[in-house]
Parts: sequence; C-alpha cells; structure tokens
Amino acid sequence: MSIALSIGPRVRKSPFFEAARKAGMSSASVYNHMYMPTGYGDPAAEYDRLVNHVAMWDVGVERQVALKGPDALALARYLTPRNLDGITIGQGKYAPICNYEGILINDPVLLQVGEHEFWFSIADSDIALWAGGIAGARGMDVQVFEPDVSPLAVQGPKSLDVVADLCGDWVRDLKYFAFREHELNGIPFILARSGWSKQGGFEFYLRDSSKGAALWDRVAEAGRPYGIGPGTPNYIERVESGLVSYGADTDEMTNPFELGLDRFINVDQPHDFVGKPALQAIRDKGVSRRFMGLLIGGEPFVTTNENWWDLSWNSACVGYVCASAYSPRAQSNIAVAMVNMDAIAPGTAVNVHTENGIRQAEVVQLPIV
Amino acid sequence: MSIALSIGPRVRKSPFFEAARKAGMSSASVYNHMYMPTGYGDPAAEYDRLVNHVAMWDVGVERQVALKGPDALALARYLTPRNLDGITIGQGKYAPICNYEGILINDPVLLQVGEHEFWFSIADSDIALWAGGIAGARGMDVQVFEPDVSPLAVQGPKSLDVVADLCGDWVRDLKYFAFREHELNGIPFILARSGWSKQGGFEFYLRDSSKGAALWDRVAEAGRPYGIGPGTPNYIERVESGLVSYGADTDEMTNPFELGLDRFINVDQPHDFVGKPALQAIRDKGVSRRFMGLLIGGEPFVTTNENWWDLSWNSACVGYVCASAYSPRAQSNIAVAMVNMDAIAPGTAVNVHTENGIRQAEVVQLPIV
Repeated sequence: MSIALSIGPRVRKSPFFEAARKAGMSSASVYNHMYMPTGYGDPAAEYDRLVNHVAMWDVGVERQVALKGPDALALARYLTPRNLDGITIGQGKYAPICNYEGILINDPVLLQVGEHEFWFSIADSDIALWAGGIAGARGMDVQVFEPDVSPLAVQGPKSLDVVADLCGDWVRDLKYFAFREHELNGIPFILARSGWSKQGGFEFYLRDSSKGAALWDRVAEAGRPYGIGPGTPNYIERVESGLVSYGADTDEMTNPFELGLDRFINVDQPHDFVGKPALQAIRDKGVSRRFMGLLIGGEPFVTTNENWWDLSWNSACVGYVCASAYSPRAQSNIAVAMVNMDAIAPGTAVNVHTENGIRQAEVVQLPIV
Repeated sequence: MSIALSIGPRVRKSPFFEAARKAGMSSASVYNHMYMPTGYGDPAAEYDRLVNHVAMWDVGVERQVALKGPDALALARYLTPRNLDGITIGQGKYAPICNYEGILINDPVLLQVGEHEFWFSIADSDIALWAGGIAGARGMDVQVFEPDVSPLAVQGPKSLDVVADLCGDWVRDLKYFAFREHELNGIPFILARSGWSKQGGFEFYLRDSSKGAALWDRVAEAGRPYGIGPGTPNYIERVESGLVSYGADTDEMTNPFELGLDRFINVDQPHDFVGKPALQAIRDKGVSRRFMGLLIGGEPFVTTNENWWDLSWNSACVGYVCASAYSPRAQSNIAVAMVNMDAIAPGTAVNVHTENGIRQAEVVQLPIV
C-alpha cells in the first residue's frame, strides 16, 4: 500500500520541481531538506534511457555548501582527508568528509569556483552546519553558506551530443569532473562533466533558481532528437556500478576505508584535517568489513529492498545488503553490501535473508557491470 | 495527482513505523533523515481526537543529540542563547540554537538526563554535526552522538488519564517539560510532560528501538477506553496555537526575535554562547518582521498551502504566509505568517496571494485560538 508524500513548504522544492511534476514524476523522496524525484512510473524505460540513450534528472537536491573568503582554502583543507594540493579553478575533486572519529559524514565533490571560493556539492547531511560550526569555533575568516545553485544532470551515452548541440563543441574536451561557467540566453550555470552514474554525462549547476523551468525546457528541446526523457539517480545502475549512496550504504560507524575510498584519504599529507589521527589509526589497523558486490540467485527481483537484509556465511552474520535490484546487463539479481573481511573473497557463497526467505548469493568485486 | 513516497533504507524508519503503517498511515514526509507520518486518511477525525479526546503520534523523528562527558554542560551552554542556570535532572527547557550570525538553526528542547549528560530533542537539522564540529574544533572533553531514543507522543485532553492508567498517578504531578525515567514490563523510556501541541500530553522517549511495537501496543491498549487513535503533529492545531515549525516558518535569515522567542534569548547573561554579539546587535536594533496570525476570509480551505503565499498591504509585499488551514474552533480560515513591522498591528487588513487568487485577511496575535 503506497504512502503519499506530503507536499508543503517545510520541505523545499528544487527549481525543476514543477517541470519534473509535469513530466510525470510519480514517486519522490526527500534529500537535503528538498524533494527529490525517484521515478516517473516506468523503471525499465528510465534504465534503458540511461544506459543506452540519454536522460535528464532533477538533482537540485545536490546542494552546494560555499566557503568564501581569505580562509576558504584553509577550511576546505581542514574539512577533507583528501590532499587538495593542485586544486584549481575549473577542476572538481571527490572529497569525502569525516568527523573527528574518522567516520564518514558526507562524500561531496569539491569545486573551486574562484580564487577564494569553493563549493562542496553534497550528499544528504547538513555540511553547512558542520563547516560553519568549525569555521566559527576556530575564528576563521570565511563565510559558509548555501548559494542559489541547483544541478540538473544529463546522463547517458548520448549526453555528449545533446550537451554539445546545446552549448557548443567545447564540451567534448571537458575532462571528467572539469567544469566551466556558461550561459544560454541569460540562463547562467556552471557546466561540469560529472554525475551520479557511470554512463557519462554532465551537470548543469544552475545559478539562478528563477530559471529552472527555462533550463529544463532547453535541455528537453536539445535532447529530443536523441530520445531524451526524464529520469532520476538510477537504483539499478548505481548498484551495477557500485556507486556509494551515503545514508543507504553507511551506518553511524562507517569509515571511508570500508567503502574502498582509500585513494581519497591521504592520511600522510602534511596538512592537518579533521579526523587525521583517527583515520591514521584505522589505516594502520586495517578495516573489519568492506563494501562489495553480490550476485543473488533465484527469480528476478521485482521490487527493491525496503530495509537492509542480513547476510550470513557459515551460519554467522557477516554484514548487510544495502541495495538490491535485478540487473538487465548482468542478467542476474545483484546487490551492494557491507561484508565482514572473513567473507569478502570473490566467489564466497553467502546467504541473503530477505523478508521472503533466504537466497543464495556470491560475493563479487565492484563494479558488478 | 499524488506523488508516492519512496520507501528504502536510505531514509530511516522509526521504531513505530510498522505499527503506524498497520494503523493506516496514508501520508508521510521525511524529518531528520527519518520517515514521519503526516496523516491517517481522516484529517477531521485526527483533529477531533487531538482537541477533544486523545491521540498517539509516532514522532520518532524527534531525534536526540546527546552531549556526554565532563564538558557536556559547557557545550550545552555554548550552543544555546538561553541561560541554563538552574537546569536540573528531570526538567527540560526549550533551548533555541542559533549560528554565529544569530540565525535560528534549530529550536530543540534540552533535557538534562544525568550529571554529565544532556539531550537536545531536535527539529529538522543536523545538530549532531553542528555540535560535534564545534566540540571537536574547540577540543572539548565531550562526546556528541545520537542515542537510541525515539519519542512516541500521547496528546489531547484525555492524555492524562491514559498515561496515568498506564504508568501510575504520579504522572499527574509532572510539571510541564518535567520528565522521569520509567519502564513498563522491560520497555525502558523517559516520560516527559511535553509535546508539539497546546492540548496537553506526554512524550515517551523510548530507550530501546527494538521495543517500538510493544510500546505502541501498550499505549493503544491503555487508550482504548478513551477513544485513542493514531495522529500526527497536527497542521490545523499548530496554526491555531501558533507553534513554530522550523523550516516551514523560517528562511535562511530568520532570527529568534522575529519568531517571538525573546524570553529564551538571554543575550545579557554572563556566559558566552554562539552568536552572542550578533544577537545583541539584533536585540538592540530591533527586528524588521514578526511571526503573526491571520484570519483569512472566503470559503473554507480544503487543502493546505503547498508553497509560501505572498502577503501584501497597501500594494507592497509585507511578508509571507507559512501555513494555512480552516480552523473548526476559530470557525475561520487561519494562518501563521511572517509579517513586516509596518503591518503587524492587530486588525491590519492585508491581502493573501494564493495560487487561486487573492483573499482578504486580518492580522491577529498568536495564539489564534
């Protein structure tokens, strides 16, 4: 029995909300205190558009936390374990954020947008409070705020053609996570080669929320020859690709090494950052569990898991399944799971405890597809 | 056209979620990264139960942010502009939290639960990040974490009888915001005389999330002779009572004086706290707008406002309507609104710009009923 989402002013609407509603948004959730579309009524078509054609997503919920002022770089460095040496205007970096205990509290992309201005493009937690509290307590000369910026993603193999038609052939030369300021008839945005899929694509960081419908329409128009349609961060594709979903995959104890983010956690860099001693200790000791893939047997899943499922091996609980789906490309049920080190060897046979009984599964590396 | 709420592991479920679903939850939202029931399909009956009888609410979304350790009191003092002199175990205090600019970022109730342990029972923003970042940056000797605590509210004029039948007659002597540890057959909780209505009532702060269904059933059983039924923080009653809803009534500039919280903002206390200079300046300068009530003419509203409505007076924009409803007790459409000082005099005639045209309204004091 479906539960209706209450719509009211307490939760914010993205600048694309009404356009997404007109396009047939049938389900949604809330992310960063904002409505996030999660489906348009045809999951198979939405998946097909993303992996074979092109889709447009209202991801205005990816809010930006701006750090602006003389101490902006110093604060950015203090907030992430990633060494920011070499960061430059026009090139984003994936920059996880941990607390003082080394626990992951967000996994944003960091964009340097000006000499003294950085944006964390965040997952679902109030990093503006975290960053603002730390900056205030340390008396740093930096403003922390949420600017009027809302991303619209264009994802899929044909996204390059769509965005080149719309913005020019220069977009073909943008590197992954690179970005540039641009505008279309007075619609200002930053265009970045990025997005929460492995199918390639771009994100339009709209810089004027009054122009959401205008940008949506321009993208829809440019995409029409390529069969563009609405979509959302895709449940199946993210499991296939092993993309981390903060909150869905993490608990209140998850550290970034468990998620395989080792190369972004530069504990030996000279700069100080929040959680450095804790993360050094975790690195030295090693982790007790790791984010892995699963191939799950039995009939194709027709729904996704509402709750985490327990995972067992040799009758012991060895972790939990975060997200599961039937993958058309893997031609199998698949999942991402947090698995105790005992059982992470690819090929390990484990049991998945669904609400409807036990299924046999095999541990695999990520990405699955 | 209704939008379905996506249910999955990314958003948390309260310990009462399945019980609430069985009781007929028909709509919900998300609050503190957790599903919050907002309706059971019969708004008139839910309102009637609250104001004339007794209702039980899953308000597990009221998460607790615990401060524990030698510096717990020092941190609590630093986080709120309210002077905490005289705080004691067993007596809660409404303790707004502002940022360094004096802007309201949450309006929790603070409970001292042990000599060195305090809980902020929070509205919808990540105060664990705010408090944890500040404690870490200042090197304070205190842990900040979310304990396994989830409130279930019993509200309405007959709540006293229900809770006395369940827990004993001592509950009749609890003062407003006072609380005490208690348990029922191994279900541990803190019982507080509190709740987000003006109809009287209690909150069971369940201390073991595995016992949500058991507590729900005990309360439902004890309430049966009094006609208890499920409900939620009530949209109509909160507008009648002028209760502040953080996020619905506030924007990124709202300070506590604008909301009429002056008596909780003790800017002249000797203790230092976040935002003290900013709040002193705002107090000295005076505010430019204030949270007020409205009586709105025309046909009774049958739905609530999806967006803020503009408010005009003498052809100028003088604020916005936060929340509106038809009030059976006022026998009028009513609203809470943020109104520029020009127009706050009770009796001022203003225009409300709804999506379906302009309605005439009159400014009134809060509470409206």
